[in-house]
Amino acid sequence: MKTIRRQILIAAALVCALALTATMANAADPLPSWNDGAAKKSIIAFVGKVTTAGSPDFVPIPERIAVFDNDGTLWCEQPLPVQLYFALDRVKALAPKHPEWKTKEPFASLLKGDLKTALAGGDHAVLELFMATHAGMTTVEFERIVKDWIATAKHPKTGRLFTEMTYQPMLELLAYLRANGFKNFIVSGGGIEFMRPWVEQVYGIPPEQVVGSSIKTRFEMRDGKPVLMRLPELNFNADKAGKPVAINQHIGRRPVMAFGNSNGDKEMLEYTQVGRGARFMLLVLHDDAAREYAYGPAKGLPNVKLGAFTLALYEQAKKDGWTVVSMKNDWKQVFAAE
Amino acid sequence: MKTIRRQILIAAALVCALALTATMANAADPLPSWNDGAAKKSIIAFVGKVTTAGSPDFVPIPERIAVFDNDGTLWCEQPLPVQLYFALDRVKALAPKHPEWKTKEPFASLLKGDLKTALAGGDHAVLELFMATHAGMTTVEFERIVKDWIATAKHPKTGRLFTEMTYQPMLELLAYLRANGFKNFIVSGGGIEFMRPWVEQVYGIPPEQVVGSSIKTRFEMRDGKPVLMRLPELNFNADKAGKPVAINQHIGRRPVMAFGNSNGDKEMLEYTQVGRGARFMLLVLHDDAAREYAYGPAKGLPNVKLGAFTLALYEQAKKDGWTVVSMKNDWKQVFAAE
Repeated sequence: MKTIRRQILIAAALVCALALTATMANAADPLPSWNDGAAKKSIIAFVGKVTTAGSPDFVPIPERIAVFDNDGTLWCEQPLPVQLYFALDRVKALAPKHPEWKTKEPFASLLKGDLKTALAGGDHAVLELFMATHAGMTTVEFERIVKDWIATAKHPKTGRLFTEMTYQPMLELLAYLRANGFKNFIVSGGGIEFMRPWVEQVYGIPPEQVVGSSIKTRFEMRDGKPVLMRLPELNFNADKAGKPVAINQHIGRRPVMAFGNSNGDKEMLEYTQVGRGARFMLLVLHDDAAREYAYGPAKGLPNVKLGAFTLALYEQAKKDGWTVVSMKNDWKQVFAAE
Repeated sequence: MKTIRRQILIAAALVCALALTATMANAADPLPSWNDGAAKKSIIAFVGKVTTAGSPDFVPIPERIAVFDNDGTLWCEQPLPVQLYFALDRVKALAPKHPEWKTKEPFASLLKGDLKTALAGGDHAVLELFMATHAGMTTVEFERIVKDWIATAKHPKTGRLFTEMTYQPMLELLAYLRANGFKNFIVSGGGIEFMRPWVEQVYGIPPEQVVGSSIKTRFEMRDGKPVLMRLPELNFNADKAGKPVAINQHIGRRPVMAFGNSNGDKEMLEYTQVGRGARFMLLVLHDDAAREYAYGPAKGLPNVKLGAFTLALYEQAKKDGWTVVSMKNDWKQVFAAE
């Protein structure tokens, strides 16, 4: 009996030690890569009030949904979104099987290394590029292709792995929200099946919490086994006004917090804002030409290109009390690998 | 110091007591409404082997995905699926605004109480009925309509609330899997937004873990506020071969366990089965005319109607080692409210 009592006490002491360690960790700064400024304060104050039982702004755990854009919000999207580099590399890999690409745009220019001419065709050229490189295989095969590519693919300017060019302050934010009972979702205009193979390891976000654009798939039997074939047909474009639609479709709950960096995220933030109770909206402003890139309103010019953040959106954010993060002033460290 | 030490010991003792209670609860029968037979044994054996660290069949927690059909698997789908009763009641409620329905099928027959003639139009009639009753309002308005309806709607034969005609053994199974680290998803041919307003309370399944058929929605501004309008246009039919497609789209991981009761679930179970490692497939056989209904192979006849479970599927299940649950023999209690 004495031995048992002793064992219980030792176990109990261990449990207490663990609890104490957890408490101490919580007490430490959860966002060490953020400078002490208005942006950081607004995040901590909001999380504090929605997680404090008895607070008029308290939000029960199941309703703590946070949505994050990916390109330009969680990782670098310049000089081009990463998925475009993936498509370009796939064109090179698939070219031997497509002799017709030698004379067909946008492939011909791409294969000559002339990105500018290739992308001059705009959305149409990009869509053609995506269908040619993202369809025609099973979902399992595509997952393997993405995993192999992302393991070694590097940014053209820094030479770092793309996955090292995720934003350290945002990784801390994801962890901080998770520790406070939030379920983090990615809601990106990028391809859902381009993100799922790596975001769990990189962001701690499981595949079922990834929402994105998609092509259609079809269930069929191949060699007597069921597979899902990826078809060269758009299923859903989860950008702009498609983001709230996709949130409703996948999550079925209005987010409490929403994070973006461009006009592609405007409707997602607006949709979040009109929910009952406390809501938090944030835009990342790319104003750090030295450590990352400066584009959008940081240039002082309306920018309507891919990944744009117009001055009008900047003014809307200020008017509606959205938090605008200056990468230059609010972030001590930009990239995860530094 | 002594006081603090005492407090720590009291806290520790409490923690231990809680841990002990949890252990005792686990040791008790997790599926008390299941008779001890092959079906129950197969479930417990499977969950045991995939959750035992070091077992060759061990599945890490993030990969423990279980998918459940809803109609006929989690609750009663006879004499008609519940959502059809909802549509019928909506027709009655909306009739004053639609004088043209007095002479237009399937509405005219419905309003006269002649269900048989109304549904004689088959899938086309059902689709028309659904579009007329499920579209034309915002997602928030529709959620309210469903919540109000489900709170009082009763089964035509038993007079019980539909939500009381969920299957007690399946509720226990959901809880048992959840306690063992599984994430339970509904994957139903039924409407995703018809289920979400009540399944969290009834099944403990949050909206983001509900997959189903859907109509399109559109983001628009109404009175200066963003809303999602429900459009009378099918977005996706999550039945039959649509189930694996919807699983891939929403979850992005192949399930480890899949539960259904009809040919509408065949492809979902086939897709689950071919995953690497241990997989578990189960079909509920409705063979209990006394306590519920007997249909499908229990009648000894191929049945190709809504919610069918053909003899061919029954034979496929036996051949492939899927568990077939006899409601009559395997379940001590059928409904949650008994």
